[in-house]
Amino acid sequence: MLEDKNQQRTSLSQLGEFGLIDHLTKNFEVKQPSTLKSIGDDAAVLDFKDKKVVISTDLLIEGVHFDLAYMPLRHLGYKAVVVNLSDIAAMNAKPTQITVSIAVSNRFPLEALEELFDGITLASKAYNIDVIGGDTTSSQKGLIISITAVGEANESDIVYRNGAKQTDLLVVSGDLGSAYMGLQVLEREKQVFQVNPNNQPDLDNYTYLIERQLKPEARTDIRELLEKLEVKPTSMIDISDGLSSEIIHICKQSKVGCNLFEEKLPVDPQLINVCEEFNIDSTTVAINGGEDYELLFTIAIEDYDKIKANPNLTVIGHMTQESEGIHLITRANTKIPLKARGWNALEE
Amino acid sequence: MLEDKNQQRTSLSQLGEFGLIDHLTKNFEVKQPSTLKSIGDDAAVLDFKDKKVVISTDLLIEGVHFDLAYMPLRHLGYKAVVVNLSDIAAMNAKPTQITVSIAVSNRFPLEALEELFDGITLASKAYNIDVIGGDTTSSQKGLIISITAVGEANESDIVYRNGAKQTDLLVVSGDLGSAYMGLQVLEREKQVFQVNPNNQPDLDNYTYLIERQLKPEARTDIRELLEKLEVKPTSMIDISDGLSSEIIHICKQSKVGCNLFEEKLPVDPQLINVCEEFNIDSTTVAINGGEDYELLFTIAIEDYDKIKANPNLTVIGHMTQESEGIHLITRANTKIPLKARGWNALEE
Repeated sequence: MLEDKNQQRTSLSQLGEFGLIDHLTKNFEVKQPSTLKSIGDDAAVLDFKDKKVVISTDLLIEGVHFDLAYMPLRHLGYKAVVVNLSDIAAMNAKPTQITVSIAVSNRFPLEALEELFDGITLASKAYNIDVIGGDTTSSQKGLIISITAVGEANESDIVYRNGAKQTDLLVVSGDLGSAYMGLQVLEREKQVFQVNPNNQPDLDNYTYLIERQLKPEARTDIRELLEKLEVKPTSMIDISDGLSSEIIHICKQSKVGCNLFEEKLPVDPQLINVCEEFNIDSTTVAINGGEDYELLFTIAIEDYDKIKANPNLTVIGHMTQESEGIHLITRANTKIPLKARGWNALEE
Repeated sequence: MLEDKNQQRTSLSQLGEFGLIDHLTKNFEVKQPSTLKSIGDDAAVLDFKDKKVVISTDLLIEGVHFDLAYMPLRHLGYKAVVVNLSDIAAMNAKPTQITVSIAVSNRFPLEALEELFDGITLASKAYNIDVIGGDTTSSQKGLIISITAVGEANESDIVYRNGAKQTDLLVVSGDLGSAYMGLQVLEREKQVFQVNPNNQPDLDNYTYLIERQLKPEARTDIRELLEKLEVKPTSMIDISDGLSSEIIHICKQSKVGCNLFEEKLPVDPQLINVCEEFNIDSTTVAINGGEDYELLFTIAIEDYDKIKANPNLTVIGHMTQESEGIHLITRANTKIPLKARGWNALEE
């Protein structure tokens, strides 16, 4: 949160739109065999042969989805990519390409956009995807990022939200709620900074939570893991809005009910400590906190033995008849209807 | 430009993000055989079999790319789609799907978004494409539209910017400059309206120009026309920034020069009249005015006989050796170097 007053500032209009695009995209390499033509024409050209094409898109708006007061541009670029790759992973598909469109107000110098594109480049290398196109323009206010992700899959491997069966188990990758609490920590530090700009924050006790918020990862590894375990999920979704919201999506589309067990929810020890410090119930955070970008999926009960020993996966509940509804079973064995309290971008 | 004070206003937060998406997308039908799964999951799923996939994306920002003072939302929705389909047409490919992401500030009621989506629906029907996904969120300021268009083509049919040869002819579809002058007329009427809101504009002499600005069409018909004429362009681009800018793109990427003939530039009679009224040179407008969304392409000189009688196509110049440069040959037979003075979104 400390500004370097001597940083270099090159105005965007010096370069012009085409110069800017050339400058920002010069480090992008084409690695995917399905990319026939990348940046530089009216459109990119892709060849997926006998594979199916999976496509998803997201819009990130400054002041709505991110706050540059604590979100470094490099992390923002990385996260913007990850969020979209997570949607492809949630189809049990392999992400292969993205397009990146950016609108910026004049207050951003070239150096800021370079930081942002460093993050995008880092993510594209980490996930072995090609940046194949986009658009760069000015905005009236703030920074806007629009990313479209493309992936490939065999038709028989694709997993939708609507395939869960009444007796299936509900499984989640990784742990829950940490990204949300990371955001709470950052918001608090921002307020402290506003009161006393010389205060040096000590964030050692929050590193995992902050990393989950600022540098989330897409669980593209889960597809490979499940393939190795010979498990095909019956339904799948990624956790962006919050666990409860995603469970309800699966239940509605699959026409099933669900029992979710509080005692099974995977949470990091750091989350427990910080929830105590903030006097927030960690179960509420695990259920409603969004932006974990873990995968939530259902499997046939017969597949339980194949996944039970895996440290990446936790069975957190089971599906039921639709008429039984969607419930959280608490540690005290009380049944509470599950409601979607996840983050809603329109209720600002 | 007259406001209906009694119009219904439903706030977006009443519906919530998922309710809004359901409401706005309920009229979208799936018609393309390549659309396996449309809106409603983490991603859409497409199947192009042995065809190649063509993909392009554009970001439209209120106050930068459009002004709602004279751009009705229905037209804006239509135009936002057309602009993207034009990029697919410029690859000599057939547009098949789009994703649509929207960010709006709270000042937009539901009814405004319905108007916008009416225009998007109209365009998707007119061009027989499926709306397969998107994102809806709030913005800090104004309206932001991000569209990604997907198309299909046989590999051998795809036309890039870099295939023009030294002896090729330069051809353009339709006429040039009208969209730009339509914008000038609308800007003038906006200023008149600001001075005297009771003034009723008489726009009869400007209908064609205004339509070219407010409701442009993508030349998806040209691909079929050229196929019928058995002509495959050697290079192609669409005219969004302006003819001169697009010619320079083709020349640079194809490593050729070009002579463009002033007397050959196709302009509408209405453009000539209005240019006189505004005291602007119509050639300057034809060369530098953007947003015509016509196709500019090169063909082998042997194909001249096949296209010469077609009223949709005009030969406006020929390519040369790269060392000869890029020139406009005026009616007075003077040779002037061609410069890209097209609209630059970053020079606001």
